[in-house]
Amino acid sequence: MTANELTASEVAASIRDGRRTAEAVARACLDRIAARDSAVRAWAFVDPDAVIRRARELDAGPLRGPLHGVPIGVKDMIDTADMPTQHNSPIFADHRPSLDAAPVATLRAAGAIILGKTDTTEFAAAGRWAATRHPLDARHSPGGSSAGSAAAVADWQVPLALGTQTAGSTMRPASFCGVFAFKPTWGAVSREGLKLYAASLDTLTWFARSVADLDLLCDVFAIADDAPTAPVSVSGARIALCRSPAWSFAQPGTETAMDVVAEQLRAAGAVVTMLDLPEPFADLGFGVHQAVMFSEGRAAFLNLARTHPDLLHDDFHARVGNRAGISRARLLAAYDQAAACRPLFDAIAREYDAVLTPSARGEAPRLEAGPGDAVFNRMWTLLHVPCVNIPVCAGPAGLPVGLTLVGPRFTDRQLLATARAVAAAIRP
Amino acid sequence: MTANELTASEVAASIRDGRRTAEAVARACLDRIAARDSAVRAWAFVDPDAVIRRARELDAGPLRGPLHGVPIGVKDMIDTADMPTQHNSPIFADHRPSLDAAPVATLRAAGAIILGKTDTTEFAAAGRWAATRHPLDARHSPGGSSAGSAAAVADWQVPLALGTQTAGSTMRPASFCGVFAFKPTWGAVSREGLKLYAASLDTLTWFARSVADLDLLCDVFAIADDAPTAPVSVSGARIALCRSPAWSFAQPGTETAMDVVAEQLRAAGAVVTMLDLPEPFADLGFGVHQAVMFSEGRAAFLNLARTHPDLLHDDFHARVGNRAGISRARLLAAYDQAAACRPLFDAIAREYDAVLTPSARGEAPRLEAGPGDAVFNRMWTLLHVPCVNIPVCAGPAGLPVGLTLVGPRFTDRQLLATARAVAAAIRP
Repeated sequence: MTANELTASEVAASIRDGRRTAEAVARACLDRIAARDSAVRAWAFVDPDAVIRRARELDAGPLRGPLHGVPIGVKDMIDTADMPTQHNSPIFADHRPSLDAAPVATLRAAGAIILGKTDTTEFAAAGRWAATRHPLDARHSPGGSSAGSAAAVADWQVPLALGTQTAGSTMRPASFCGVFAFKPTWGAVSREGLKLYAASLDTLTWFARSVADLDLLCDVFAIADDAPTAPVSVSGARIALCRSPAWSFAQPGTETAMDVVAEQLRAAGAVVTMLDLPEPFADLGFGVHQAVMFSEGRAAFLNLARTHPDLLHDDFHARVGNRAGISRARLLAAYDQAAACRPLFDAIAREYDAVLTPSARGEAPRLEAGPGDAVFNRMWTLLHVPCVNIPVCAGPAGLPVGLTLVGPRFTDRQLLATARAVAAAIRP
Repeated sequence: MTANELTASEVAASIRDGRRTAEAVARACLDRIAARDSAVRAWAFVDPDAVIRRARELDAGPLRGPLHGVPIGVKDMIDTADMPTQHNSPIFADHRPSLDAAPVATLRAAGAIILGKTDTTEFAAAGRWAATRHPLDARHSPGGSSAGSAAAVADWQVPLALGTQTAGSTMRPASFCGVFAFKPTWGAVSREGLKLYAASLDTLTWFARSVADLDLLCDVFAIADDAPTAPVSVSGARIALCRSPAWSFAQPGTETAMDVVAEQLRAAGAVVTMLDLPEPFADLGFGVHQAVMFSEGRAAFLNLARTHPDLLHDDFHARVGNRAGISRARLLAAYDQAAACRPLFDAIAREYDAVLTPSARGEAPRLEAGPGDAVFNRMWTLLHVPCVNIPVCAGPAGLPVGLTLVGPRFTDRQLLATARAVAAAIRP
């Protein structure tokens, strides 16, 4: 196993123990990128010399923190002071922010090496798609908008990568690419220095190849539940399968994944039941989410529409001009319905040890069809609840399909403990 | 009348008509600043040469937009690409952002001249106070956190200034300094490039010397209600006086202002009644707001606590370390209570043409007592409703006292129309 194939936890432990250097790990990742980037195209920017310099600095100094020497990819709509942040927009070609985004600064303070910037859908929203290809089959999309982050982690180019989610920009590409990913409770981590799209939805996320690595970043970001994490055993656990109001959009890959999970968890001793959400949830992931996202995007892109009208993709002019015709009354009704559903869902979810729901319609679509549909993710983003993508099985085309584990708000750490147990039970 | 005494609307009209140049207006403001800055200390940064260069550029070119040549002050926790943004924090001494904050870019695209950066409480939150003095009496505070913006507008140094409000950082200093100010509905204007404190509370605001000027910036920021603005007549209007659950904190200046308003509006033919909010509103401006602000601040300042622990004021370490001991359960209860009260208040406010409530406890406090108390503002910030400060009268010490006009969410333009009529009726 080469160092680029290690998890972040393994990298950190081996550097801490003196078995590896940060430089050796960084070189292994850079070598993998050099070998694979023409096929996968996960990166918008990598400066190998700068990465090696940072690794040598870390190797020469004291231990900085729990991520000492761990390479991390950063979605290219998150500010970095020493690299461009281009948002896949011509307006920001070669743009260099003066500051690291808050989460990037926190990662660096913990010893992380920012390996480079990963490609994204324009402003993590609409417009131009990432150039990234699916690591397992270049004819397919890795999903979006966090395309490069998902693909780079899946393709063993980096053990961890930051993404974001406003609709389904993390759970979906994680499912397509077959990696773990975590969306914390809205508000648990600062979003300063991430491109703004929808203030009440935008959430920093991260991709990894183990649940332990997802948990490691929770430590670094000081995410804490009220209660200490309780041990989780799948045997006897109450597991809810929630097909969600979007179930009619499910394709065979996702149908299979739900069956596989039910069967394997039952085999492990879990009590698996179906969960149908009550009426107020029916359109949360459809018109309600859309009213919030589009209306907040109306304010978010006004400045670019005014300053760079010709370089701004028409998708954003559509937001600013409110071409969807969403009234303020509709927006307020959406805010209030979502807000009323949040405690309702928390109460429902507390009746179970885990709620599992689709991460995507099915396997990764063909490239020309675009980065896929967030239909199974939007409701959860709007509900502000923590979500973990767990790879489950392969679909009919042999590409990965995952499911999302969901918990009540601010039970992030407990949810990851559950995810670890569930993942162990359902992986062959 | 010298050009620095004009309102923004007057400046814009006179430049458009060729009666004045942008340079002449800018020079008048700079002269006023030169004469008064040692007493008022409203500014964290002004570069007169750069201001004159920008004014000449505008004078030499075509009309850029509705703010062509209008000088605007910007609170020094809002990013500006050509000036420092220092947040009144030693961590950001001489820091120069690479980009304008979204609202600054929008103002510039409309032809505005950013006159300089106005002093603020550290990170618009806590820690160090602004150095600014009350323009009418240097022994008093102008309020905070938007201290410099309120004082500069009140002291005829600039016709318009941007501020922010997370608790009471705009309505309170506007009341103390005797100027108009507007807090739009949460989410109506992008907050990208403003220092993040509490994502669900932080709101861009602006100060002016007329309601028309507040409205002018609404045009520029494309703030639109669902319905066209209806004409407002105070005669026959239903006016609610809402003492609010904080009434026991009111001092004689505010008690007088409420009496003055009731009397003058009745004299103008309005039907003035008292409004008591129902039980769920009782602690919104106290424990509920605090739970949200402190908990969101816990995430917002984590990066600075990790990267610059010695330069970060202890107030922010207190947020990050959750020294207030606010549990996640308490935060969620606060979110859900606030969310439930928002439509309740909208429905109550729709029964009236205007709801008037205190802007501050009373007159500006003495400097050594600090920038004042947000006790009368926090509930409205949490409710996301638009607010206008209207100067009403002088208090016992001869300093100004204002009141806040509040409306349902996303009735920003109608609220300003009402404010114009109310202000005309209550001014002597």
